[in-house]
Amino acid sequence: MPLTFADPKALDHDTVEEGTAFAPRFDAHGLITVVTLEAETDTVLMVAHMNAETLSLTLETGIAHYWSRSRKAIWKKGETSGELQEVVELRTDCDQDCIVMTVRQTGRGAACHTGRKSCFYRRVVVENGQASLEDTGLPRLFDPKAVYGH
Amino acid sequence: MPLTFADPKALDHDTVEEGTAFAPRFDAHGLITVVTLEAETDTVLMVAHMNAETLSLTLETGIAHYWSRSRKAIWKKGETSGELQEVVELRTDCDQDCIVMTVRQTGRGAACHTGRKSCFYRRVVVENGQASLEDTGLPRLFDPKAVYGH
Repeated sequence: MPLTFADPKALDHDTVEEGTAFAPRFDAHGLITVVTLEAETDTVLMVAHMNAETLSLTLETGIAHYWSRSRKAIWKKGETSGELQEVVELRTDCDQDCIVMTVRQTGRGAACHTGRKSCFYRRVVVENGQASLEDTGLPRLFDPKAVYGH
Repeated sequence: MPLTFADPKALDHDTVEEGTAFAPRFDAHGLITVVTLEAETDTVLMVAHMNAETLSLTLETGIAHYWSRSRKAIWKKGETSGELQEVVELRTDCDQDCIVMTVRQTGRGAACHTGRKSCFYRRVVVENGQASLEDTGLPRLFDPKAVYGH
């Protein structure tokens, strides 16, 4: 049975910030931002979104389920690639409009569809008033063409 | 002079994901999500937003500037509390719709307006089909009433 969540609009400011009611503040599209960290290292693997249904699925099954904004569908992370994420802990922030989720990244350890461990494989550099990107050198742990066929 | 950024709509998929052009994908409100980490520990301090102007200010000054969605104004983090954030590194993700920023948190080391180091001071627990929040025990490093006067 799906979990139900408290409505943040029905709670006062102090209850949202200091209370024990879990009242995720979904945005106008019914989504909440999720930052996914690797257990042990706290490396940021990815940032994605959940709706109430996939948040409930994640908490009930212990396996990360996101909402794919591009496909407009439930996204059980790793269903195609095998890189399932086992949930260790979910935390929310002061105003409950964001979630930090710690996971054990299974499979080859690649959370990113490019085959890298993390989606954050480029840093911003500014030179002569111009911003550009530089690769941080994260290796590819799988070949995306072989896994996704495109 | 403000930095200008490439337009992701003008770039093909591979260039956005593997290239050196920094083309932040601002949302319909002109904002991009920023996950802020503490240098050395990689602790997630907070999640907030920047627009093109505050992203440029952050890169130019080396001090974190966000866009406050509630106040609809530039938010130089720590201007009131003294908890300025010195930028160490900015990274972006595969589709460039998110930023991870590593900072040195100055002042008393509290990124959260509640006086705690991190905004993520509560974890979600599920018992008997009910989700609720539990304090993780992060201490308050300042008294918000004394700092903000309310």
